[in-house]
Amino acid sequence: MMKLDLSNSAIFPKGEPLPEPLRKNFVGQCYLAMIVPGNSPLEFLIANETFEPGCRNNWHIHPGGQILLVTGGRGWYQEKRKPARELHAGDVVEIPGRVKHWHGAAKDSWFIHLAIEVNPKAGPAKWLEPVKQEDYKMLG
Amino acid sequence: MMKLDLSNSAIFPKGEPLPEPLRKNFVGQCYLAMIVPGNSPLEFLIANETFEPGCRNNWHIHPGGQILLVTGGRGWYQEKRKPARELHAGDVVEIPGRVKHWHGAAKDSWFIHLAIEVNPKAGPAKWLEPVKQEDYKMLG
Repeated sequence: MMKLDLSNSAIFPKGEPLPEPLRKNFVGQCYLAMIVPGNSPLEFLIANETFEPGCRNNWHIHPGGQILLVTGGRGWYQEKRKPARELHAGDVVEIPGRVKHWHGAAKDSWFIHLAIEVNPKAGPAKWLEPVKQEDYKMLG
Repeated sequence: MMKLDLSNSAIFPKGEPLPEPLRKNFVGQCYLAMIVPGNSPLEFLIANETFEPGCRNNWHIHPGGQILLVTGGRGWYQEKRKPARELHAGDVVEIPGRVKHWHGAAKDSWFIHLAIEVNPKAGPAKWLEPVKQEDYKMLG
């Protein structure tokens, strides 16, 4: 079956493969473009993230929270002890501060979202263990 | 000439025509969808704005600043005493606080952007005079 190739991203720049210190917190390849760099005069941080099919990040926590704006593809968002939520272009996820969660692409689809840091002064993300392979495999 | 009809918006919801208290600050029809309402737990405000061809807002000021993420169409952004900047999908505009500016569609194109309020606690937008018709007409 032909899969829609979103490898050149949708709308916002695709950027480069994740830098080394972040890469270890992901399974598979993810591309990162800083849309609004944290050192901008507005002191605001927005990234564009492009996940290849099957790519997802490990469980993690944002002390200040995060907002995801999905611009393309199909993927998943899951909070600890809740069912995973399927995501498509146009979906918005409000991630509260201090809530353990992960997000990433579906097995068979690229997945692209903007990620907006909320209250980044609360501190950097705290990275935890990978999503269990059998749990990810159960998702469509 | 056929114009690309983006009237049903691109990616994020189109929403409804601007409510009455805002409408007087625009020339032409603009549609508004609150993507993240300001009363959300994250205390964050993101709107999707869809301008019909020729629609633009009046000169105005955001005390805390604003970020525009362009998702479709063609439009313009201008700060006082600077040339207008043409905008297309994928463009990002960082609007500093207290800077007088306007934005809107090109004459012949729908125009869609997300608008993120920066530091909304600094206060609401201050609305000023319309863009001069002859200045807008000179833009392509």
